[in-house]
Amino acid sequence: MSLPRQMHLGVFILGAGHHIAGWRMPGAEAGSENLDLIVRVARKAEEGKFDLLFLADAVNTRPDMHPSMVLRLEPLTLLAALSMVTRNIGLAATASTTYTEPYNLARYLGSIDHMSGGRCGWNIVTGAFAEAAANFGRDKHPEHDERYAIAAEFVQVAKALWDSCEDGIWQLDQAAGRFIDAAKMHTPDFKGRYFSSKGPLNMSRMPQGYPVMIQAGASEAGRDLAGQIAEIVYAVHQDMAVAQAFSADLKQRAAAFGRSPDHIKIMPGVSAIIGGTEAEAKAKLATLGECADPVVALRVLAERLGHDLGGYDLDGPVPDLPPSGIMRGHAETLQALAKKENLTLRQLRNVVAATMGHRLIVGTPEQVADGLQEWFEAGAADGFNIMPPWFPGAFDDFVDQVVPILQKRGLFRREYTASTLRGHLGLPRPEWGG
Amino acid sequence: MSLPRQMHLGVFILGAGHHIAGWRMPGAEAGSENLDLIVRVARKAEEGKFDLLFLADAVNTRPDMHPSMVLRLEPLTLLAALSMVTRNIGLAATASTTYTEPYNLARYLGSIDHMSGGRCGWNIVTGAFAEAAANFGRDKHPEHDERYAIAAEFVQVAKALWDSCEDGIWQLDQAAGRFIDAAKMHTPDFKGRYFSSKGPLNMSRMPQGYPVMIQAGASEAGRDLAGQIAEIVYAVHQDMAVAQAFSADLKQRAAAFGRSPDHIKIMPGVSAIIGGTEAEAKAKLATLGECADPVVALRVLAERLGHDLGGYDLDGPVPDLPPSGIMRGHAETLQALAKKENLTLRQLRNVVAATMGHRLIVGTPEQVADGLQEWFEAGAADGFNIMPPWFPGAFDDFVDQVVPILQKRGLFRREYTASTLRGHLGLPRPEWGG
Repeated sequence: MSLPRQMHLGVFILGAGHHIAGWRMPGAEAGSENLDLIVRVARKAEEGKFDLLFLADAVNTRPDMHPSMVLRLEPLTLLAALSMVTRNIGLAATASTTYTEPYNLARYLGSIDHMSGGRCGWNIVTGAFAEAAANFGRDKHPEHDERYAIAAEFVQVAKALWDSCEDGIWQLDQAAGRFIDAAKMHTPDFKGRYFSSKGPLNMSRMPQGYPVMIQAGASEAGRDLAGQIAEIVYAVHQDMAVAQAFSADLKQRAAAFGRSPDHIKIMPGVSAIIGGTEAEAKAKLATLGECADPVVALRVLAERLGHDLGGYDLDGPVPDLPPSGIMRGHAETLQALAKKENLTLRQLRNVVAATMGHRLIVGTPEQVADGLQEWFEAGAADGFNIMPPWFPGAFDDFVDQVVPILQKRGLFRREYTASTLRGHLGLPRPEWGG
Repeated sequence: MSLPRQMHLGVFILGAGHHIAGWRMPGAEAGSENLDLIVRVARKAEEGKFDLLFLADAVNTRPDMHPSMVLRLEPLTLLAALSMVTRNIGLAATASTTYTEPYNLARYLGSIDHMSGGRCGWNIVTGAFAEAAANFGRDKHPEHDERYAIAAEFVQVAKALWDSCEDGIWQLDQAAGRFIDAAKMHTPDFKGRYFSSKGPLNMSRMPQGYPVMIQAGASEAGRDLAGQIAEIVYAVHQDMAVAQAFSADLKQRAAAFGRSPDHIKIMPGVSAIIGGTEAEAKAKLATLGECADPVVALRVLAERLGHDLGGYDLDGPVPDLPPSGIMRGHAETLQALAKKENLTLRQLRNVVAATMGHRLIVGTPEQVADGLQEWFEAGAADGFNIMPPWFPGAFDDFVDQVVPILQKRGLFRREYTASTLRGHLGLPRPEWGG
């Protein structure tokens, strides 16, 4: 008898918490540069047998961004550090295809995979914030569709570089003086429209072949790229029917590219506020709401919708603005929610303050487990990217109180059965040259 | 009574050893991708109270390079990993100003400094191998002097980005809702000839202010840059008088830029082959020589001299070729040695196989200590970049047998008295905006 289908869990580590006021909760630590906190969170996630931890990124800042995003450790070096203090959990981070060089990024990710024994994941982003361009001496951020064309080619050149060496290149025959098998080193000589890289990459093939590919684009171009290459898809959903349709669409696109629908895992973001009773959980949410900085919250909403909101009445309806294309998934989900629940701008601002638009479950551990199980069993998700409103307490509660319920229900592993991220996700190791 | 002047020691970790045949020695491990070995070496260096460990780099490869350079972990991610398994030792790596973006590299180095509590060093290189250009879609490697102009400006923009935030930006006043002191975040808006970066950098000021700046260029442009910015200078010297003149020149250049000559530490590379007796050490060198791959050795020599050596008689004199400008320090040192000792091409090839042109000391632990003390006391060096011929054994011998002698002679610390790399080196923390 085979096991029932298992849920996948990731923790989205955002230093000062996902709720905009999370850092103000009792016991919260504002850890976007607090390595000690992040190490404790990573170990807690591993104690909870999570598939992976995930670090987001941006290459720009300003003082009035979401607190977790103002100042932070750089994610790739942070993943490398975390590889030394964890043993099993997958280690994923965002890295932009618009503002990095393929040869360099291929090395960073490859090294992390080598050092962690096959636990690296790469969230491929095209760069959400237009302000980034000026940090890289560019006149402007490329347009949406061009950014996706660049991303698709970037992945191609990275894969070509990662395949510079066949498996088994190391010989290390001291007596014969045979160091490597030179016949197993190849020169990709990649020439594309946006990138050229001759190679070879100066690294042997990584344990996972390629890092696990993660993608989150909700636009047509984003979904197309995800169908082609993504192995995990992050998504912003409030509505189960929409999430079901999204999942079905992505799996169909993967199949159209000749891939198994099982090899693309849909993991929407979920924030859980957990209390001993539903009332206690709701009280926590109320406290968070009272502590949230309204100016920052409105700015975060404006970023998500892609429009300046300065001129609108906070107690009027949410203005019906077209998705700007920069964070389209967020914009569409938030607009749909506002329409469905007839929200004022102030109410939508408070939703964004809590989860940046992601699903929020407020209740007892059982209620949170129910909320995850429902979506999982309905085919709206293969797992969840857990976005704790603050660290470490709110995440500790999830691991200590929700995970055991999921385990008892047979929905989630009690022990690791693999030591690579591909292993946790049931993904094959890509063939060389694949 | 103040302590006598203390020697600084670094270990240059080059996976498969510095001798081209080091990996073939009994007990040697070929560790350029062997994290476990590198961790053991780092810990051994810390046991020996070394100031720092150093990782070189290149952004290209081919199967017939020096074995340590064919395949390797990427140094920045590796430093980040090592920050978690060491406590005191400085962590330095090479990163190219020709093939990275200032905003990205500033973040990587800043994160390493944050995570290590102020132990990061940056060896600023302009990229020695012309083949690198093709890995980055460039038609050609920039010319020597332009590479140095780019490097100087790169350091300027990196410093501007590192100064985006004044010290003390974190407030974390939960009750008042004061997260950071926004007035302490500034927009550098750097506009240069080669780079522009608006900023701010999304990271608070690092513990050391800036990473310790390391430089190794021996050309006029390289020395000038070193005088201006370097805090450690690596060098290739075989001759003490030449090393003395080099050190005096660099300190004079630093003074001309208004800097204290004490704040530029000259640390030439030294390889030591240690035996219980001088004869035993010489026998090890002979074994290494017999094991060296002559084809790879000649290629490494050709790289250093900057000329193809295919057409020359191995048993004839070393051809008198002008330094090519790519690795000028190596070329000049090797040509001077060949002339002084009247070496054949075969003999010079064997020198390069052993140390790539750096000083080699073969003998008992006392003889090695004597050789270091002589140069140190003569003002030819402030310390040494130790280049073990293989790992881990040859380095273990240095730490176990040579370091105690240096300590007994009062030349080297018995315990760490600081926890930052600047602290070990006696360098001040730069003022903000400096």
